[in-house]
Amino acid sequence: MVQSSIKQVFLGVDPGYADMGFGIVGSMRGAVGRLGGQQCLAYGSIQTAKNLAVGVRLEQIYAGLADVIKRYKPGYAAVEKLYFAKNTKTALLVAEARGVILLCLQQFGIPYIEFDPVQVKLAVCGHGCATKSEMQKMVKILLTLKETPRPDDAADALALAIALSASRILHTERTPI
Amino acid sequence: MVQSSIKQVFLGVDPGYADMGFGIVGSMRGAVGRLGGQQCLAYGSIQTAKNLAVGVRLEQIYAGLADVIKRYKPGYAAVEKLYFAKNTKTALLVAEARGVILLCLQQFGIPYIEFDPVQVKLAVCGHGCATKSEMQKMVKILLTLKETPRPDDAADALALAIALSASRILHTERTPI
Repeated sequence: MVQSSIKQVFLGVDPGYADMGFGIVGSMRGAVGRLGGQQCLAYGSIQTAKNLAVGVRLEQIYAGLADVIKRYKPGYAAVEKLYFAKNTKTALLVAEARGVILLCLQQFGIPYIEFDPVQVKLAVCGHGCATKSEMQKMVKILLTLKETPRPDDAADALALAIALSASRILHTERTPI
Repeated sequence: MVQSSIKQVFLGVDPGYADMGFGIVGSMRGAVGRLGGQQCLAYGSIQTAKNLAVGVRLEQIYAGLADVIKRYKPGYAAVEKLYFAKNTKTALLVAEARGVILLCLQQFGIPYIEFDPVQVKLAVCGHGCATKSEMQKMVKILLTLKETPRPDDAADALALAIALSASRILHTERTPI
């Protein structure tokens, strides 16, 4: 991968408390169409241990995301919206982590957009009812990866970055994005 | 109020997204019993405007709390636990703010404890079914204030600081508190 061929760098974040997925996608200069127009620069998961205090885990999430931002210098970010799951206690914990994520983006001056899962599915698979497996296959194809990204949170984050890269909102150069 | 008579400084935080209440209570050297043993050093509310982006509001909450911490240098903090309200969307937003609050305390190295409302009512009023009005009256009496603290979030935060100060946990000097 030739860094100089990267036009813009996008960060996708799948908020989580035990596992926070991140994905970095670069849009390529001169690329035509979707396939080959986006390149995977990095992906992974920031994990925090259950036995640690809440504040320590939140600090680790902040520090981990800050490291990713410093390293890849994304120009824009996409963060998944949160909805209530069956386990409401977990939803509150994830929301706390999400607050820390949004704070981190704000403090680093990275404009962000919030996508709901249907928007990401539409952008990546072309329809809003795509399964997790379909999404992962499309992420693999669009980014021409040899293997399906793991863990799931990282694949979800790459999908968010793809959706952000493909978003027309960027092309209209609205501020904030 | 003579600063040198303050033994320990406690911070109470009532998490909120539009209004985050804070209260600073000092325990007095040589004071016997509850009445007169605690002094109100400050209270107030950090407010964020509805028309601002989420990240900006979270940054304001962080910066506001950081200012309070730098100014009053609390040794311990108490943060109210969050439960699901009728408006679940609001609960998630408050949880995001709460995540930022816990991160801020962690980054400043302030040990904190999480209280649920019943624990605070028990500590301040002596029973877990106290009304908001009863709580505010007791806060006024215990801190020998001339007026009932306003807004409500600030009064709630002072109640948290009182409960923290009164907590036996501190007396047993357990770590973390």
